[in-house]
Amino acid sequence: MTDSPRRAPVTRAGATPAGRRRLRRALAAAAVDLFVAKGYEATTVDEIAAAAGVGRRTFFRYFDAKDDVLFANHDEIVAEMEETFAGADPEREPVEMACAAVSLVLESYAAELDVSLKRFTLTRTVPSLRDKEVATVDRYQRVLARYLRARFAEQGDETASLRADVAAAAIAAANNHVLRRWLRSGGQDDITASAAEAFALVIDAFRVERASVEETTVVAVMTTATPLHAVIAKVNAALNEK
Amino acid sequence: MTDSPRRAPVTRAGATPAGRRRLRRALAAAAVDLFVAKGYEATTVDEIAAAAGVGRRTFFRYFDAKDDVLFANHDEIVAEMEETFAGADPEREPVEMACAAVSLVLESYAAELDVSLKRFTLTRTVPSLRDKEVATVDRYQRVLARYLRARFAEQGDETASLRADVAAAAIAAANNHVLRRWLRSGGQDDITASAAEAFALVIDAFRVERASVEETTVVAVMTTATPLHAVIAKVNAALNEK
Repeated sequence: MTDSPRRAPVTRAGATPAGRRRLRRALAAAAVDLFVAKGYEATTVDEIAAAAGVGRRTFFRYFDAKDDVLFANHDEIVAEMEETFAGADPEREPVEMACAAVSLVLESYAAELDVSLKRFTLTRTVPSLRDKEVATVDRYQRVLARYLRARFAEQGDETASLRADVAAAAIAAANNHVLRRWLRSGGQDDITASAAEAFALVIDAFRVERASVEETTVVAVMTTATPLHAVIAKVNAALNEK
Repeated sequence: MTDSPRRAPVTRAGATPAGRRRLRRALAAAAVDLFVAKGYEATTVDEIAAAAGVGRRTFFRYFDAKDDVLFANHDEIVAEMEETFAGADPEREPVEMACAAVSLVLESYAAELDVSLKRFTLTRTVPSLRDKEVATVDRYQRVLARYLRARFAEQGDETASLRADVAAAAIAAANNHVLRRWLRSGGQDDITASAAEAFALVIDAFRVERASVEETTVVAVMTTATPLHAVIAKVNAALNEK
């Protein structure tokens, strides 16, 4: 194997959960590189597996099909989002909580700039991958809607189901807007600042006691190293100060 | 042909725009019936064409592929939406105008209850058709966003692009919520009343001068025969009265 340009084999690591995550990422990275280099249609599963130093069978232990590999960590993100909701402070404003949870998507993109940029190129040029991406957004949007529906219903909102669907779509759209802007800038844009602005717009639009809020200017001071969820919490706290 | 259960041939009608529309609808209705009766995968283009009394070649003059036929009138709806925006009163509140335009989708579903219900069953059971539907929503959502972006920018909104994406997603989600609720009721629900409620929620959320609005109860009186766009205009006028 020493004369091969393959990535180091990571098969053994598949035994532990962290190892499984690493292998999924290695397969995803190998796939993205091949899709960009050879074209999506022309790349085979065998080639992806070989480039990650594993066999075809191992590939299919991790993914159902070639088009699944591009959104390799989507299941993890959805699971994390559900955990975030399960452990959420019941006193926290629901839309703000949902924005904090969806920022996990932004964080995962930001953590892998190279893969994210290549995937962005692919989804803009390969219609079936674009459809796949739309489907992944639809999936986490439903997780957001489910959380919001339960919380709005607790608050006695008779239009809980409608409001939850609309707010979840608005949050997903805000998130996608920020993501696309950041990707178009080649990862140069300040994603934290755009996310804070976008989520503040949504939180403000769907604030339940909106009608009683007087318009004032709010100032929130933070460093660029502040994690997104902390930024959102801070901006919202500032908006709620009377 | 008299001993065949086929629909009356409508090939000749293809010569005029109205005839072309009728033939598209005939192909769509034939396809939906076959998909429900035989299953989507098992139905061939030849069978759809034959059931509408035309040949395979005629089918491909109207549709690129089998999965396009289910959303036969989508192009027409998008074109009508764009015309509506082109002729829109520039004084009209942009989000309200976008809600009125999207209600064209509801009206087209309501006008063909039988096809709409069968399609609803199909999109819930065939994943590729569900994806196709998500893609059609994505398409008209982009038309809404484009209109809103231009109008918000005219109003000097520096966040026009963000606000337009978020509002367009919210409008599409409200529309889908109403549509699904109505389809689940087998077309029994009062679609006009649900649409008025749903669009009022969105218009209220994205009203630009929202912060200065005091909370009061509004009453709008109308008959069930009132078209959706008139209901929306009326509810919005009532909400804007001080």
